[in-house]
Amino acid sequence: MKIALDVMGGDFAPESIIDGGILAINEDSEIKVVLVGRENLIKQYLNKKKFPKESIEIVNADEVIEMAEAPSKAVKTKKNSSISVMNELHKKGEVDAVISMGNTGACMAISLFTLGRIKGVLRPTIGAFMPCQKGMTLIIDVGAVTECKPENLYQFAVMGSIYYELIMGIKNPTVGLLSIGEEEEKGTELTKETLQLLKKSKLNFIGYVEGRDILKGVSNIVVCDGFVGNIVLKFAESVMPFISQKLREKIDTPLTKLGGMLIRPVFRELKSDLDPEEYGGVPLLGLNGISIIGHGSSTSKSVKNSIFVAKRMINAKLNLKIAEALAE
Amino acid sequence: MKIALDVMGGDFAPESIIDGGILAINEDSEIKVVLVGRENLIKQYLNKKKFPKESIEIVNADEVIEMAEAPSKAVKTKKNSSISVMNELHKKGEVDAVISMGNTGACMAISLFTLGRIKGVLRPTIGAFMPCQKGMTLIIDVGAVTECKPENLYQFAVMGSIYYELIMGIKNPTVGLLSIGEEEEKGTELTKETLQLLKKSKLNFIGYVEGRDILKGVSNIVVCDGFVGNIVLKFAESVMPFISQKLREKIDTPLTKLGGMLIRPVFRELKSDLDPEEYGGVPLLGLNGISIIGHGSSTSKSVKNSIFVAKRMINAKLNLKIAEALAE
Repeated sequence: MKIALDVMGGDFAPESIIDGGILAINEDSEIKVVLVGRENLIKQYLNKKKFPKESIEIVNADEVIEMAEAPSKAVKTKKNSSISVMNELHKKGEVDAVISMGNTGACMAISLFTLGRIKGVLRPTIGAFMPCQKGMTLIIDVGAVTECKPENLYQFAVMGSIYYELIMGIKNPTVGLLSIGEEEEKGTELTKETLQLLKKSKLNFIGYVEGRDILKGVSNIVVCDGFVGNIVLKFAESVMPFISQKLREKIDTPLTKLGGMLIRPVFRELKSDLDPEEYGGVPLLGLNGISIIGHGSSTSKSVKNSIFVAKRMINAKLNLKIAEALAE
Repeated sequence: MKIALDVMGGDFAPESIIDGGILAINEDSEIKVVLVGRENLIKQYLNKKKFPKESIEIVNADEVIEMAEAPSKAVKTKKNSSISVMNELHKKGEVDAVISMGNTGACMAISLFTLGRIKGVLRPTIGAFMPCQKGMTLIIDVGAVTECKPENLYQFAVMGSIYYELIMGIKNPTVGLLSIGEEEEKGTELTKETLQLLKKSKLNFIGYVEGRDILKGVSNIVVCDGFVGNIVLKFAESVMPFISQKLREKIDTPLTKLGGMLIRPVFRELKSDLDPEEYGGVPLLGLNGISIIGHGSSTSKSVKNSIFVAKRMINAKLNLKIAEALAE
């Protein structure tokens, strides 16, 4: 099993990426990693490291797509970027999955263009896990498809269910459709039509869920278009920094300062629970291949976790399951 | 200045509504309140209270629209509801504003149907204040108009700016358009077209803002369609209960328990800062009249604050300003 890593992408690249790869091969001898990026840079860093030589390959790619670069432009002008080269390897069958912590938009565009879609998939989608009162909620889509038809949302629900079951080990996870009320007449034309599609499906569909139900964990999966999902995800990511700042402003007496000190470890734990970076990358579902895209700020642990996510997807033949479910 | 209160609407009605009215007239002798609802019930409760008799009137309305009732049905079948009667009084010019903490959907529908729109307003809108790192952010729309055209969003921005300036006392408040990236090519057809309208406007428009910018307070006003706004608002309302529960689960040693006790007052203060119920109701902007709709759980303080919001809107001739701004 060979998994390609984009060594050039991410805030802590190349170190965190290479370290993550080494962590994975040390833990699991079935896995081989292919490091894609500037060869000199990679060799230089690897010289300082100990690792099983037979489990690492290097493939050179001269160009780098920067984090802030406009994806549409980068895709056209940088044909030899690490992201492009890695996806080409996947297309040729030389690796079984690709992982990048780099420019999300560029990764999506290049994977989609290079690998294509699973038969029957209208638009590939990307989800994100968010902690809730009981376990984790998968919000899908969070930005891959901003303007959706009911069929898109239906497919997100199917792909999200299959993925949730694989990663969380929950059979027939519940699916909720994000709307602005529980009653069927609430929502938009899009949600109303999607509601009917989902009611007729084989999914464990529980109906509309509202904004307040996401953190409650009313459904395992929350389906929405990528515009709404992206806004909710980014809002959620801003909550803990906001609360920390407000608490710092309010803690101003000796007693509350003492309380703040005593409770700091608990608060830090909560912050890390709520930090999406802890959960590794998420795949672009519906691709004819496996492409996992992580947060720019991913640590080596998150890179390692992403490699194991890829392994589970490969072993479970996730793409085949998606194709079968959509063919029904 | 006469302001009608829906005595039958809200979780703590009629007590909190009548008490709120009495608080307002005791504080400000310019204000008279008209209590609309079941006369017996109102008289019974008023018998126990001290207040300046000349400042309260009672208007009977036999029917009550329940909080959970489907608005579309209630509007048709309950012609003599407190909400309907109150809006009729406003239409006839017998009161200067109406306030309800009852069924939001029914209030919107009845006010819109009875009072009509200001000339030039395509769709009236409702906003909500949310605390941010510096002051308060007004999110507009939060549920009145779920499917929008660019012109709707443009008008929300105009009405929101005028309202923000009145309530927060900030001249030329900044306006951001909610989207999924800062670059102009990000977003949907709706946001892209709206962006161009807002760039040409006289508003203090700063461009796209993202989900993470709301709590940061990057712009005073965040413009979005009512579907997205409603989901963000309800998500935000669920944050503090979620964090409280997670902290309770994690506080499990004597030291962290002590820390939790010491810090409780700070945390409670933060919770109330983040509680939208503390800020009174918000008006349905763009109506040919003044109709303020509050949270069901509004306390008497919140009812009183809503009355003062109505007074400021009347004194500032807010609706005239909206008409003028949209005519430009």
